Amino acid sequence: MAIEKQVVRYGPLKDFIAQGVRVGDTIHLSGQVSVDAAGATVAPGDIVGQVKQAYANVAEVLGHFGATLDNVVAETWFVTDIPAMMKQGRAVFAARTEAYGGPPDTAQTLIQISALFQPDLLIEIQCVARV
Amino acid sequence: MAIEKQVVRYGPLKDFIAQGVRVGDTIHLSGQVSVDAAGATVAPGDIVGQVKQAYANVAEVLGHFGATLDNVVAETWFVTDIPAMMKQGRAVFAARTEAYGGPPDTAQTLIQISALFQPDLLIEIQCVARV
Amino acid sequence: MAIEKQVVRYGPLKDFIAQGVRVGDTIHLSGQVSVDAAGATVAPGDIVGQVKQAYANVAEVLGHFGATLDNVVAETWFVTDIPAMMKQGRAVFAARTEAYGGPPDTAQTLIQISALFQPDLLIEIQCVARV
Repeated sequence: MAIEKQVVRYGPLKDFIAQGVRVGDTIHLSGQVSVDAAGATVAPGDIVGQVKQAYANVAEVLGHFGATLDNVVAETWFVTDIPAMMKQGRAVFAARTEAYGGPPDTAQTLIQISALFQPDLLIEIQCVARV
Repeated sequence: MAIEKQVVRYGPLKDFIAQGVRVGDTIHLSGQVSVDAAGATVAPGDIVGQVKQAYANVAEVLGHFGATLDNVVAETWFVTDIPAMMKQGRAVFAARTEAYGGPPDTAQTLIQISALFQPDLLIEIQCVARV
Repeated sequence: MAIEKQVVRYGPLKDFIAQGVRVGDTIHLSGQVSVDAAGATVAPGDIVGQVKQAYANVAEVLGHFGATLDNVVAETWFVTDIPAMMKQGRAVFAARTEAYGGPPDTAQTLIQISALFQPDLLIEIQCVARV
């Protein structure tokens, strides 16, 4: 069954994955991490900085679809060390609120996993958006 | 792009997350765990009891949208110890069947993760529902 | 709220899970692993072989809906050992490209988890498809 996909593909991984795929009114985003446009890790060892950069990347992908963080309906946080993150919980959630421009209207799942695809990454955020 | 979200938000985490977000005919739920309305863990150390409470919480969120477990199309089980769970596999899946009121018509993914956001939690269930 | 689900259910786990559920234009698939129709593990210890078999299983589920891998919009890879996988990264991604018949237009999330539901499984792939 043929479907019409709008595919956003850029950056160092563009030969392997799409950063986002839209069909109809739903956008699925690839998990976003704290890397810059060249693929270098931003804020290694700093969970607050990594949350900020990951959301900056989410916003960038959404921007390619003409969408913003307001369009996110669900996010899954895959975190390597929840207790360490929670020690800075206030700053972490403040960074999230700032990224969204207010308390986010999004469902959330928070999971501690063994590792991400680079050892210096502390969080990966997977989002679904509606437009 | 403005969208119309129906947002369900209550309980001890209501300032941080929505328990569920509906846009159109799809509801994304936050991961549900074995906690009660006050945020206290129910059935610590008891996987069967935690499955029951997690589904009770799923049902409660869905109820706010006028939906039930019949509306769930996909669930991801994030479990801290699959071998331990499987030792009580019959009781665990019986609890799931009872929650759904019969063999559930839902896709499932079952993953063992390192930890959940409280150390006494054994399972988190993330659901997508259609209405 | 009653919805019309198209449910695909077969194989050794058919009493417990649906392999896929379609409502409207969206199909949610259960996480697919490297097992054959009888439930036996294919290619134990071989990540490339397991990727191939997991995608063969994804394609089989989709086929029951009249869909193909072209319909996949998002995939989450749950992998037990990313560094080990990356040592064969070229072959792994070649197997994925071959399964899709070209560079896939799909969002991807890649997570290292503690374990899957059988100890000889190295990867589980969770897909969402649109039709």
